[in-house]
Amino acid sequence: MNYKKLGSILGKIMIMEGLLMMAPLAVALIYRESLWNVLAFMIPIVALVAIGGILQIPKPEKDTLYQKEGFALTALVWVLMTLFGAIPFVINGDIPNYVDACFEIMSGFTTTGSSIITDITVISHSSLFWRSFSHWIGGMGILVFVLIFIPESNDGSSMHLLRAESPGPSVGKIVSKMKVTTRILYLIYLGMTVLEVIILMFDSPIPGYENEKLFFSFLTAFGTAGTGGFGVIPGSMELFNPFSQYVVATFLILFGINFALYYLILIGKAKALFKSEELRCYLLIVVIAVGFVFMSLVGRFDPYPQTYTTEEAFRHSYFQVASIITTAGFTTTDYHVWPMLATTTLVVIMFIGGMAGSTAGGIKTSRIVISVKGAYNNVRKLINPRYVPKTKIEGKTLEEKTVNDVFAFITLYFFIFVLAVFLLSFDPINGKTVEVVSDAGTYTVKHGFFSNFSSSLACISNVGPGFEAVGPYASYAGYSEFSKVILTLLMMMGRLEILPVLLLFSPRTWKRI
Amino acid sequence: MNYKKLGSILGKIMIMEGLLMMAPLAVALIYRESLWNVLAFMIPIVALVAIGGILQIPKPEKDTLYQKEGFALTALVWVLMTLFGAIPFVINGDIPNYVDACFEIMSGFTTTGSSIITDITVISHSSLFWRSFSHWIGGMGILVFVLIFIPESNDGSSMHLLRAESPGPSVGKIVSKMKVTTRILYLIYLGMTVLEVIILMFDSPIPGYENEKLFFSFLTAFGTAGTGGFGVIPGSMELFNPFSQYVVATFLILFGINFALYYLILIGKAKALFKSEELRCYLLIVVIAVGFVFMSLVGRFDPYPQTYTTEEAFRHSYFQVASIITTAGFTTTDYHVWPMLATTTLVVIMFIGGMAGSTAGGIKTSRIVISVKGAYNNVRKLINPRYVPKTKIEGKTLEEKTVNDVFAFITLYFFIFVLAVFLLSFDPINGKTVEVVSDAGTYTVKHGFFSNFSSSLACISNVGPGFEAVGPYASYAGYSEFSKVILTLLMMMGRLEILPVLLLFSPRTWKRI
Repeated sequence: MNYKKLGSILGKIMIMEGLLMMAPLAVALIYRESLWNVLAFMIPIVALVAIGGILQIPKPEKDTLYQKEGFALTALVWVLMTLFGAIPFVINGDIPNYVDACFEIMSGFTTTGSSIITDITVISHSSLFWRSFSHWIGGMGILVFVLIFIPESNDGSSMHLLRAESPGPSVGKIVSKMKVTTRILYLIYLGMTVLEVIILMFDSPIPGYENEKLFFSFLTAFGTAGTGGFGVIPGSMELFNPFSQYVVATFLILFGINFALYYLILIGKAKALFKSEELRCYLLIVVIAVGFVFMSLVGRFDPYPQTYTTEEAFRHSYFQVASIITTAGFTTTDYHVWPMLATTTLVVIMFIGGMAGSTAGGIKTSRIVISVKGAYNNVRKLINPRYVPKTKIEGKTLEEKTVNDVFAFITLYFFIFVLAVFLLSFDPINGKTVEVVSDAGTYTVKHGFFSNFSSSLACISNVGPGFEAVGPYASYAGYSEFSKVILTLLMMMGRLEILPVLLLFSPRTWKRI
Repeated sequence: MNYKKLGSILGKIMIMEGLLMMAPLAVALIYRESLWNVLAFMIPIVALVAIGGILQIPKPEKDTLYQKEGFALTALVWVLMTLFGAIPFVINGDIPNYVDACFEIMSGFTTTGSSIITDITVISHSSLFWRSFSHWIGGMGILVFVLIFIPESNDGSSMHLLRAESPGPSVGKIVSKMKVTTRILYLIYLGMTVLEVIILMFDSPIPGYENEKLFFSFLTAFGTAGTGGFGVIPGSMELFNPFSQYVVATFLILFGINFALYYLILIGKAKALFKSEELRCYLLIVVIAVGFVFMSLVGRFDPYPQTYTTEEAFRHSYFQVASIITTAGFTTTDYHVWPMLATTTLVVIMFIGGMAGSTAGGIKTSRIVISVKGAYNNVRKLINPRYVPKTKIEGKTLEEKTVNDVFAFITLYFFIFVLAVFLLSFDPINGKTVEVVSDAGTYTVKHGFFSNFSSSLACISNVGPGFEAVGPYASYAGYSEFSKVILTLLMMMGRLEILPVLLLFSPRTWKRI
């Protein structure tokens, strides 16, 4: 283990986090918040920059990072970012409990959007900003961000880091130089975010929040870009105008697309879009899911409390499918009380998630496509043992190894998910009832199996809200600290796609070779 | 596709089913049941033997069966057995609806034990016998049974059949001749069943059922041996004496063990037992699961209605874990209302199931062991790309292909499970409430997500009862015919471990080469 190189990179990340915290600090100053709110960011900034600076002093003898170091480092970075990123909430008192604060900011960085805040109206502007900004930072990847500023070595070290953090079964370099790749991706990301802010500014302000238009536009755009989904007012996006809801839903679907495809458009290879099997599949799933949810809401297959107009039923279907398949988790209505077909459709797309190489979580469309094709090949091989699969995906022949890795990943995903549901069953909250106030009225729900099932799923897939006692109008506040730690780890596993986190906890990783 | 050979084997199976139906026919005669109850078995017996006989006339030119034919044939056999096996229930009026009857007998053959019968007290003795007897027939495999009587060809045709029907990742021939193997296994199976009947006869009779002791002992032993779990009186085994409950639970655990191990004991190689990693793992999971459930019941982590003595709490924990991990589904108490830790433990072991090569369903212990080791190897390979896994299981080095097949299987299992939950969400029963009368009192449950989740799981894992509206004191009667067909297919997929059923529905299988 190349500890000095590791320390050097970690230090750079810390300095970076310190610099990023300048943004919420500025918000605290602009909104003339109290001294503690300012100090809440000042103190960690000073600490981060100081420690990060000290870590730069020992010069690493060799510049190489092995694959295992890259992976473990990535996981470690996310842990450190969280441990420091949680500090402001504790100092300014918005989230006094440190475990809660870690849960909240991990939920931010991993773009999950699960929250333990029960009353969003008392949270300061600077905290709200930091929360949503963390979505934006985490969406494209923390390390990817830093890589732009680190001199690139030619031994593929940065490739290891990028691979560990990038969602999906494989990472393709768009252009030969890693740094150029990441810069292009970040520019596209930034451009699309700014575009969304501008479009959102065309909407009329939300009644009661007339002065917050620009602020909310930025925060909403951060949450959309990172497909995070932290709400900024009670009821997530329920009170937003239909215009904004349509805009956000559409941008969510766009941010759930592999960013490499946008690059191809930029360089004039728009045809590639039509060739992309994953994109077709992703859009097809979106359309089908919207169809089923809409059908279920309009058909009223089983009773549910809300009465929507046809436009509302369509808008909520479109919005919730977009928000959940991209694993953002913004909500416009209480979908927990919806009919079973709608509910189950949402559960299924929570597993699926967005495209590889996007900011969305979940198993990813490409893995679904690959595993279905792989399973089909297995059947073909049974029919004719001499059958050699020549199935192609995205123009490349599907390799045996890729298929096997995908199967292994889905199995692990499923195991870790089941394990989490089991661990949550120890929580004293089980069997208790929670009162929920939503657009469906006031009702009580019991914290039952579906609560633990959906909270585990919402965390490993980085969705955010679940169902029942962790539904869109409830919060994760009721869980014990033990459960919150489990869920926090689960979010990290989901975001980093499991293996880096397992490596982090493997003693072999830390042995000197 | 060798249609003549196929027809010849199918015909033999039909004659066999006809002969097997003689047993319930005898029961109908012994209990002097009505003419219709006798005809209910007479008619299908005549039909089966006649059609089966006709199918013997065309002589197949070649004797070979390819792998695909073996697999497709296996699935076809199960379909045919079910379509004919359901007829008696319709004729004698015990289950007038044919789809319901197919559900019930498929549940029997696949040793699932899910039932659509709402009042078991009105069912005739002959129907009860046929139901439970189908568990016994299906437990070791229908084809395996028939193979004993079919002249063996030397080209491995019978191996293909055995492979398709035998649970677990691989089939090892115990002795070189397939027919000898199957005979030995069936003798062990028969011997253990008889032993259980004898032991159960030592118990005092169940109050109110004094004359049924021998009858119930046989039916219970059938359900235990096949790990099926059809009840014979209301409340499954709630009213049975603790002695019988302990006996059944213990035999269930024994029937969840790979039968090859019993053979090794028989030939004096008992040491092999201690070497079997899967056995250790299986027993360990049983002990841990009993521990958690017991802890949860005694600790009363969250409120539940029953008040057990410590002995009762232990007995119910032991019984339910044994009954559910072996995927039998007998019950002694209403476990649906148990605390979350107990509930979740039961859900987890529903996924796991028993050992490969036993009569139990589920993913199987060996697959869990192999996939965990495989995942560990993947982590090791990330740490050191030159690492060559030398992990052993049951004395053999774990092959790459075995691991990949297991990952693929678990992924498919998970996909099909999720798909089934989705398809059930169309059922009009969703959102309706059901009244349940159990040892926990009378209460109503809503048919919610957990109902569909657990019914799909209970069917694909061949457990039987689920939770909520399909809990141990409820039934599957409320589902629509569409859902019942889905669940019936799911039971078959679970029993035949997916691929043969997929082959059956693949057009390529039926092409002439």
